[in-house]
Amino acid sequence: MNNIKETIIQLETAALERWNNGDPSGFLELSASEVTYFDPFLEKRLNGLDALTALYESIRGQVRVDKYELVDPKVQATDHTAVLTFNYIANLGDSVFRWNCTEVYRLETTDEWKIIHTHWSQMPK
Amino acid sequence: MNNIKETIIQLETAALERWNNGDPSGFLELSASEVTYFDPFLEKRLNGLDALTALYESIRGQVRVDKYELVDPKVQATDHTAVLTFNYIANLGDSVFRWNCTEVYRLETTDEWKIIHTHWSQMPK
Repeated sequence: MNNIKETIIQLETAALERWNNGDPSGFLELSASEVTYFDPFLEKRLNGLDALTALYESIRGQVRVDKYELVDPKVQATDHTAVLTFNYIANLGDSVFRWNCTEVYRLETTDEWKIIHTHWSQMPK
Repeated sequence: MNNIKETIIQLETAALERWNNGDPSGFLELSASEVTYFDPFLEKRLNGLDALTALYESIRGQVRVDKYELVDPKVQATDHTAVLTFNYIANLGDSVFRWNCTEVYRLETTDEWKIIHTHWSQMPK
């Protein structure tokens, strides 16, 4: 179980490293075709990798984070599913952004973990 | 699979009915002991049913909703796990509250579905 936790946090961190340098492809490669997605700027849930790709491509190159921290990441693993949750603190210059994040990973028949659901939301200032 | 979807939505709706009349016990009875929980008013993730119980008991009797709607509920089920997501619109008098909601359910060895993770966040006004 520790092994699953390490694997999931490694996958998430690698995708975040790319994200924080303006490259959304890490998350797109990690997401399953039927991924569902919430963030606080959307009017409704996004359904599917095509919709997520359209959203992420629209902001390619625009995200930059100087420093970030996954606070107390937790993985609740059950057979072929792992629920990763963490508080996320990102710094850009003097600005601090604070988020709640849920990622539901599923182990595919190819033995790869893929994200089937993402939920980002903002924390109190 | 349709059967799981119906079961999960029924469980969630029954708990919401009680919640919207000030009774948090529906969600507390439905949550697993290791439940994790995010909402937009908390400084960090809650861990475990005891912490969730303390939060919910502090607002027992205070929630009232006249009318609510689960918009486009979706269940992504894999073996013993089901991820329920929906947009949620609640009306109280002239006020409208709009939310994103993620619930991760797990089928327990007792053959009951229990919530192992909840994430509520607010949508744009």
